[in-house]
Parts: sequence; structure tokens; C-alpha cells
Amino acid sequence: MLGRILLLTVLALLSLPNECYPDGLYFLTTASGVVYQTYCDMTTAGGGWTLVASVHENNLYGKCTVGDRWSSEQGSTPDRPDGEGTWANTRTFGTAEGATSDDFKNPGYYDIVGEDVSVWHVPNDTPLKHWNCKSILRYHTETKFLPNYGGNLYQLFKRLPVRFNAGACPANNGPSIPIVYDEGDTGTTSNLYSPNARAEFTPGFITFRVFNHEKAAMAMCSGVKPTGCNTEHVRMTYCMIIRIVQ
Amino acid sequence: MLGRILLLTVLALLSLPNECYPDGLYFLTTASGVVYQTYCDMTTAGGGWTLVASVHENNLYGKCTVGDRWSSEQGSTPDRPDGEGTWANTRTFGTAEGATSDDFKNPGYYDIVGEDVSVWHVPNDTPLKHWNCKSILRYHTETKFLPNYGGNLYQLFKRLPVRFNAGACPANNGPSIPIVYDEGDTGTTSNLYSPNARAEFTPGFITFRVFNHEKAAMAMCSGVKPTGCNTEHVRMTYCMIIRIVQ
Amino acid sequence: MLGRILLLTVLALLSLPNECYPDGLYFLTTASGVVYQTYCDMTTAGGGWTLVASVHENNLYGKCTVGDRWSSEQGSTPDRPDGEGTWANTRTFGTAEGATSDDFKNPGYYDIVGEDVSVWHVPNDTPLKHWNCKSILRYHTETKFLPNYGGNLYQLFKRLPVRFNAGACPANNGPSIPIVYDEGDTGTTSNLYSPNARAEFTPGFITFRVFNHEKAAMAMCSGVKPTGCNTEHVRMTYCMIIRIVQ
Repeated sequence: MLGRILLLTVLALLSLPNECYPDGLYFLTTASGVVYQTYCDMTTAGGGWTLVASVHENNLYGKCTVGDRWSSEQGSTPDRPDGEGTWANTRTFGTAEGATSDDFKNPGYYDIVGEDVSVWHVPNDTPLKHWNCKSILRYHTETKFLPNYGGNLYQLFKRLPVRFNAGACPANNGPSIPIVYDEGDTGTTSNLYSPNARAEFTPGFITFRVFNHEKAAMAMCSGVKPTGCNTEHVRMTYCMIIRIVQ
Repeated sequence: MLGRILLLTVLALLSLPNECYPDGLYFLTTASGVVYQTYCDMTTAGGGWTLVASVHENNLYGKCTVGDRWSSEQGSTPDRPDGEGTWANTRTFGTAEGATSDDFKNPGYYDIVGEDVSVWHVPNDTPLKHWNCKSILRYHTETKFLPNYGGNLYQLFKRLPVRFNAGACPANNGPSIPIVYDEGDTGTTSNLYSPNARAEFTPGFITFRVFNHEKAAMAMCSGVKPTGCNTEHVRMTYCMIIRIVQ
Repeated sequence: MLGRILLLTVLALLSLPNECYPDGLYFLTTASGVVYQTYCDMTTAGGGWTLVASVHENNLYGKCTVGDRWSSEQGSTPDRPDGEGTWANTRTFGTAEGATSDDFKNPGYYDIVGEDVSVWHVPNDTPLKHWNCKSILRYHTETKFLPNYGGNLYQLFKRLPVRFNAGACPANNGPSIPIVYDEGDTGTTSNLYSPNARAEFTPGFITFRVFNHEKAAMAMCSGVKPTGCNTEHVRMTYCMIIRIVQ
């Protein structure tokens, strides 16, 4: 199944208790008054999860091409060590209902103050009503780690920039947060990867801002904790978001 | 006038009786609760037409370049036989009022259940209030064929994938639906093309999912029914949406 | 500080008295019924300014690449003398809150009838609530010149096309409108540029549709009036929006 995960959409959800009720689409309003519509999950671990972003791999064979709004749409060059800067700015794009067919980022990404993160791995082009049942992996953190990093991914990546050469592996890697599985388990996670790739990580974590030997920065290794600094060798497998500048 | 049609925007409208009233912009809500704003036409053939998409040719000289969201923004390669997959997914983009200056696709594309299809050929950058009077061709089907294909273009292209090598010409071409003209006629349609191109089609139809000898798939040949399998030779004329992978 | 201005976002605001009240985000409706949300400034010169667009330089080293929606996302070629045509069409993109991290253009750009123009130079990625205090330059016109050009930038650039070879320098350059500074002054403006560049302009103006010796057209030279026709030599400094086709 090597590479299969790249066909999946990652839905990053932030905890937002008491904001949503049944599963489905809701209108929310930011602190500054922006109104937006997104998906809320009220069933996982007591509910309160709000979809703030999806990462969609539209081309397994293209890296840093048009449509890669989370990394770079203009290739990787030394001139742009931050790529698009999407992880730490307020640019938004896409729609909740199109989140499995396109990248998605809404104002909740920078506006919501949350405690934990949930990730769903959903096959490309799955309709919204089937996200839950069709997901291949679903898991969430329970350590309430987000407030230590500003309460959301926008603030976390302000503190831990996804920037070439902003640090070294392993000293400057961000936190590895243990996860609780809602669909699948550590075995399922490992089975998504090739035997070679499995030697490079421990399943059961979300790891943020990971460097490799080449000083490239990855925003997230979702589902795993790297055990070395060779993430570039398996970058198309368990560390989905990578930007290499060399 | 060879090639002139490529400067036109195609507005694909689905029948939606009793949903709209005067011509103009309306707010609609999908089954899952997505709210969007689009144009409705209440004058053509009794009305009830809702704009769900426009196809905008932003560069006559560029094929499969940035902005070609209906085909491929990353060129044509064997790695991506479906291109962007736009015809059969829930990704949306653009706005109704910008539909003659940019590609447009709204949630109605996959949400509305319709009976017939209408197409308007409108010159680039025409303001919304002049779409009707400035259109070069307007026509619609009356056979109520859409329910046989799922009720909308999203479902139709799920059944008839716009994918390289998904079938052969002419055996696997989709249906050619006869049209009724609201502006122009079969002569107007033919006159849009060069004498050579005219030998390759019969005007008076919308034809869906057309293959050519090279196994490339076109989503629509709007206004015509191909009579052969050389659509690649006139692809910039009467078959606007083409994706070649070879 | 050569080149520093290129990192800034330009917020073009049109005068709209009595439409907005405190500074912040508002819902507005166009003549045709489009509803959109944008920022209004009620403090500058009596207020009434509505944000209609921002120009964001996402790559100092890339020209006419993906993300350059105001010029061309497909490079500069003789085939496309108008580039994307964004200055004179109704295509919209981006969000008000993301305007310092992405290009932004809303329906107010073509719908609002205004009298004057204000421009804010704000560093990239500045949050909305800090736009005012973090701006490096803020200035506005007071001559009520816009009605002479149709009342907004859309109409102005219909009359003064930003098109290669549509005119010659200096005979066909558009108007240079004097500005009043709200943050900074003519010295601050000049200090943004290199000594060599300073010889090419007089600060204290917004100049529209400027040609150079090579017949390239720039939409705006914001903050300055060119004194010659060598704007291409300093194009990355005081004339931000340039499109070269040769």
C-alpha cells in the first residue's frame, strides 16, 4: 500500500466544545466578524470538533505545483524558505463540502481557540455525508496541548515556523502528541506504509514541524513520530506536508 | 470566425422549475445546508434555469495551464488521466457575477436535481446584466434526459468519466442530446467554425464525454454532435473542453 | 531599503461616505444583489473608506507566476497583452481578513461608485486589527477625480486599459493625482527607494496606467509620479504592478 495515504485527504479538526450540535455544516463567526460555514463533528469523544482545514494531494507525481497551497505552488527555491506561508497566515481557500476534492482552510484555522487536534484520513472525492464512514483512519489528541502553543495551528506554526533551515533534526523538531484512535489503530497506521518506511517512525502520534537531515521542514507527520532524520526518504508516505529548499 | 468561440464563456444551466422567480441572483441552499448565490433565468422556455457553472477560456494559446480548472492546471500527463477531476467532484470556485471573467462552479452543480441543460455562449467579460442580450448562442435540451444520468452533470460524469483511455471512439461516446435554439440556429453554430471543422460535426446537439482517436476524453461538445473521431483536429473550435494524455 | 515596498500589501480603498460606521468588517450588497464582507475605515479624513482590493507580492523573485492575479499567472507573452485582465473585469478572489497574505478583490471594486482613492502599505501577514498601526504609508486623494473616470477602478481601467502597447510614454500615461498623507510623508516615500530610483519619480501622487519605453503598461505607480519613461528599471520599487510583454 506504499503511497496510498497520499490519495487521502487530511481533515484537521480543532476542539471546540459547546459550539456545535448535530454533525454537519454550521455557520460560525470569528472575533472580527467574519462569517463562514464549516463542518462540525459532535460524535467523536463527546464532540465539539470543528473542521478548519483539509490538505488535498491533487497530484501524486507533482510536488510544489499548482494546487499545493499548503506547501508551495511555485516550486521550491532558496528565495522562498517559507513557501506559501499558509500554515502561519490568514489566507483562506476552498469550501467544507469540497474539502476532499481540494485544499480547504477557513477562518477557524486562525480564529478558534482549541485544546486538541483530530485528523481524519478520507479518500479523495468522498462526499461530505460519507466522510465518517469512509475514513481510513481517524484519531485525536487528548492532552490539551494546544493552549501551550497559542490555541490553534496558526499560532503553533507562528511559534514553530515551517521554514527551510529554521532548525535542525532532531533538536528543533516540534512536539509529538500521543493520539487516541477512533477508526483504525497503530497497526492500521503502520500498514499504510512500506516495510522500509516503517523503520523510520513509531505510530500513535501527531508530530509537528519536523526537520530532516537536509534541513527541510515538514508541517506535520500525521499519525506517527519520526525516529530518525531521514523523513525525506519517506516523505511521500507518512509526512505529507513537506517543503524542500536546497 | 475560426476560433472565436473560444473567447466565449459557456454557462451551463440546469433546469430547476419553481425555484427562482425574476431573472437575477438568488440565494440557494443545498441538501447538506451549504448556502450559495447564483443566477437564475426565468424567461427561457418557461424559466427555472439555475446557473451552476461557467467554463472560461482565459488563454487561447495556453492549454492545461493555470486557470484551466475544468481540464488541468498542471499540463497533461499520463500520471493524471482524470486531470483535475472537476467534472465529477464537489470542488467549487468563482462567483456568478464573475462567471464571464473566470471559471465558475457552485454547489448546485452536484446538488440540484434537474431535467435538462441549457448553454449560453457569452463573450468574455460581459457584465451579468448583459449576458442574455450579448450572448452569441443560447440553446437548451427538452428531452428530460438528465434523470437517466443521475439528475445533474456531477452524476452524469461519474457515470461517464472524462478520463484518458476510459473508452474508445465512437463506441463509448456519451449521449448526443438534441437542442432547441433560443438565440441563433444551426447555421449560426456552423458559421462559428472553419469550413474544415464543419465536416466533423452536425450542429443542433449537446454531446457528452466524447473520445477521439488518441483516446483523449472531452467533457462536452456543446452545440454539435461529432460525426467522426478526429475531434482533436478541431478541438479549439467546437469541442471546448479537452484533455489529452498520451 | 531598496525593494522593501514589494513586501508590503497595498490596500486600495474607495470613498464611500455614510455606508460604514466604526472601523471593521461589514456586509455590503451590490446593485445586482451580491452580498460580500469587507473592511471599512471610518477614521481617515472623516471616514467612509471601503476596502475593495489588495495587491500582495507573494514572491519577490517571481514575476507573472502563480498567485500574481493582478498581472499574469501565466508569464508575459505577446499572445496575452492584457494579462489576466483583472483590473477591468468582475472576477473576484481572496478575503478581507486574508488581504495581507493573499491578493484580494471584492465586488465593491466594480460596484461601488466612489470619489477618491486611499492606499495603505501594510507589511505582509499583518493581522486585520493591526493594519492601521502597522502600516508604513497611508495616503489618500482629495480631488474627487474618480467620477471623471466612471467612479471606480474597474471603470477607470476600462477607459485606460492596462495593456501592452495600448499607448506610449509619456503621452498616454493616465492621471497623476496628488495625495494627502495619513501616515508618512514624501520623505518617507522617497526613503523607501534607492538613490537611483529616486531620480525617476516625484513623490506625493498616485499615477494610473503608466507606460514605459518598452510599451509595457503598469496599472498604478502608488505614491509617486514618474518623471521619465524608465519605469522598467525601477519596476520592483515604486511601480508595483507591471506587466511586460515584448
